[in-house]
Amino acid sequence: MKRNEAQPESIPAVANDSSSVLKSSAMLSSKVTGFELSTLKRFLRNMGNPPFIIELWDGTEVGSAEWPAARIRFTDRAALYKLFFNPDLQFGELYVDNRLQVEGDLYKTIRVLCDALPDFTERGIMHRVLAYAYLLKRNTMDRAKDNIHHHYDIGNDFYRLWLDDQFVYTCAYFRQASMSLEQAQIAKLDHVCRKLQLQPGMQVVEAGCGWGALALHMARHYGVSVKAYNISKEQLAYARTRAANEGLTEQVEFIEGDYRQIQGEYDIFVSVGMLEHVGVKHYRELGETINRVLRPQGRGLIHTIGRNRPMPMNAWIERHIFPGAYPPSLGEMTAIFEPFRFSILDVENLRLHYAETLRHWLERFDQNTEQVRQMFDESFIRSWRMYLAGSRAAFDCGELQLFQVVFNRFNNPNIPATRDFLYTD
Amino acid sequence: MKRNEAQPESIPAVANDSSSVLKSSAMLSSKVTGFELSTLKRFLRNMGNPPFIIELWDGTEVGSAEWPAARIRFTDRAALYKLFFNPDLQFGELYVDNRLQVEGDLYKTIRVLCDALPDFTERGIMHRVLAYAYLLKRNTMDRAKDNIHHHYDIGNDFYRLWLDDQFVYTCAYFRQASMSLEQAQIAKLDHVCRKLQLQPGMQVVEAGCGWGALALHMARHYGVSVKAYNISKEQLAYARTRAANEGLTEQVEFIEGDYRQIQGEYDIFVSVGMLEHVGVKHYRELGETINRVLRPQGRGLIHTIGRNRPMPMNAWIERHIFPGAYPPSLGEMTAIFEPFRFSILDVENLRLHYAETLRHWLERFDQNTEQVRQMFDESFIRSWRMYLAGSRAAFDCGELQLFQVVFNRFNNPNIPATRDFLYTD
Repeated sequence: MKRNEAQPESIPAVANDSSSVLKSSAMLSSKVTGFELSTLKRFLRNMGNPPFIIELWDGTEVGSAEWPAARIRFTDRAALYKLFFNPDLQFGELYVDNRLQVEGDLYKTIRVLCDALPDFTERGIMHRVLAYAYLLKRNTMDRAKDNIHHHYDIGNDFYRLWLDDQFVYTCAYFRQASMSLEQAQIAKLDHVCRKLQLQPGMQVVEAGCGWGALALHMARHYGVSVKAYNISKEQLAYARTRAANEGLTEQVEFIEGDYRQIQGEYDIFVSVGMLEHVGVKHYRELGETINRVLRPQGRGLIHTIGRNRPMPMNAWIERHIFPGAYPPSLGEMTAIFEPFRFSILDVENLRLHYAETLRHWLERFDQNTEQVRQMFDESFIRSWRMYLAGSRAAFDCGELQLFQVVFNRFNNPNIPATRDFLYTD
Repeated sequence: MKRNEAQPESIPAVANDSSSVLKSSAMLSSKVTGFELSTLKRFLRNMGNPPFIIELWDGTEVGSAEWPAARIRFTDRAALYKLFFNPDLQFGELYVDNRLQVEGDLYKTIRVLCDALPDFTERGIMHRVLAYAYLLKRNTMDRAKDNIHHHYDIGNDFYRLWLDDQFVYTCAYFRQASMSLEQAQIAKLDHVCRKLQLQPGMQVVEAGCGWGALALHMARHYGVSVKAYNISKEQLAYARTRAANEGLTEQVEFIEGDYRQIQGEYDIFVSVGMLEHVGVKHYRELGETINRVLRPQGRGLIHTIGRNRPMPMNAWIERHIFPGAYPPSLGEMTAIFEPFRFSILDVENLRLHYAETLRHWLERFDQNTEQVRQMFDESFIRSWRMYLAGSRAAFDCGELQLFQVVFNRFNNPNIPATRDFLYTD
């Protein structure tokens, strides 16, 4: 991710500079052919002629929108062919390599593409084979550690630049539209705690605790004791320091461990933003873990990014941002619950809240680009912008969902009569 | 269901009277053997010795509870063997035939059995084969008509004796615990309407409209126009008369037709208590129907009895009460939504509300037994009590769930920001 040879960011004026990428194959970047032009036009027509100006390597322009949402520039012929072959992977790859340059709002550009691209299942067979290949992977405990290390251990100083002050790296809950990101993250923590009906003295286990914000919030504001598991060393170190500084070490224990290593018995099982990293093949193991540790009268909540139906993770995100990750459909999630007769009590889909959360993150990231540049190179910055803008677009256009699922054991009658209690102060 | 030869109800004192059932095989009802006694005792021990007194055909008593919840009497040897062989089917069969007699509260008795019986999947293989056999059935349009006729067309005068005054034959919503059944049914209609965010002028289609209460409520209180489909002739006749009497024929059209026959385009799709009759094999057809008739910005709600995991319908209920019926797990329900990219927005599980609804129905049924006796014979009365008491127990003990699922199209951004609007007046 971190690259040593920083390339200068060159979005506004790039024409010659970036052709260096293909120096040795100048021939490949010769004049656009009639065939290429007609293929590109057909591609755009199939997408309903989105409002883009496409600028090719020899200066040729395609697209005639009066108010183009963006100008998309291909620096070389191979870039165009790669995009045709596998757009889900290559849009990100080429953008990071600066061979596909976007002049204009990156989020809006992806949003337009998201709405215009044909449905995944209607795309070519080769494309789908490539995307599904990842399904052969298993997230063993060792691989899970590598995957998590890859994303979460790149430095708290970096995350501090664009997350809220508590490092809550999951969907916020904008209970009032006017809330700041900080307020909305606290509102999310409270929404989760209230759905779980936490009572003082309860024993809680959290699987995948991030930087510890939820665990500490539950202990401080709801009087519960928490064992919080995580396999990211940097996050654990931070969470432990925070617990010590805030005098909560008696109530909250941060444990280095995978969800499969959870020990003990609890009144509450909670997991916010971990299921994306578990992988469908392991849902039964997760269900077994919950079944093993949850007391008869216990309750649980899983908060996760999801899908409307089974579909591979975006190939670029899976390769570069979240290796091993997979957002499940609600049907796939039932593999956690059904074998153990857990009763699903409440499902809420908060996808637009995640779009709004990402809007905040991207805005802060962009405001702090100079500081990120002190730490990482240009391709890292482009990579991160692609990830944040692309995710925002995916939640906005309905490609991704955010599910909060509350459950208990089938024979536990201790169910709130209505959900009124969640909406009264 | 309606039988001509009425047998006298003989629960309090039956010893000799009921042996007539096996007149021709007096030998079969000879003295209880040591083998039978030890088998029965083992059976009870496996269930954790529930607080019953079991009285056998020769007067032998088993069970030693100080405060027995019930006395269960077997009038003949064959009855006991039938129950051992297939309890799910035979408990109902034998009770209706008055060969298994329950002295004490029928609901409480079934409730204790429900908690004590081993999990379905742990029961014998033969038992499961018998129960799953029904899965081979398909609910074609003709069979669906027969199935619905069997249950719903036995006379509005009968249903009037124990339903609320609007004939709402689905789970009520006791928003306040103090609500009467009538109030809770209206609260349910409103809960559904509010979840659907009905606005004046919207066009609504209802699949499986019962006696029309929801369709008329939506039209009167929310100003929408409704096409309501049903295949029960008696229910339709009643609903049409009500629409005429209430001056709502312009706004509400009641149409004789199966969900597969729905025509037109709508802002809202709603179905309350129909999915139980559709059958898992037909969920894709139902999804196709919704996909065909729902406008791009439309919303839908399905309210249905469900399960925590796939499991056959209770065999006795399927045979005698609801032929062709099947309550799905949430995972099975996703077969309606996932192929068409519908986005699940909200799932609420109201199982305890259905237990409470059934408590009211059973209480009213028992209060009006004399009037039911004018219409039907004793075995019908026992059959109906078994159905209502058994269903109440099943919802109470967590065997059955009640799901309300709200959905829209994947790319429809018109989603309420929070669920606060459902809980403010």
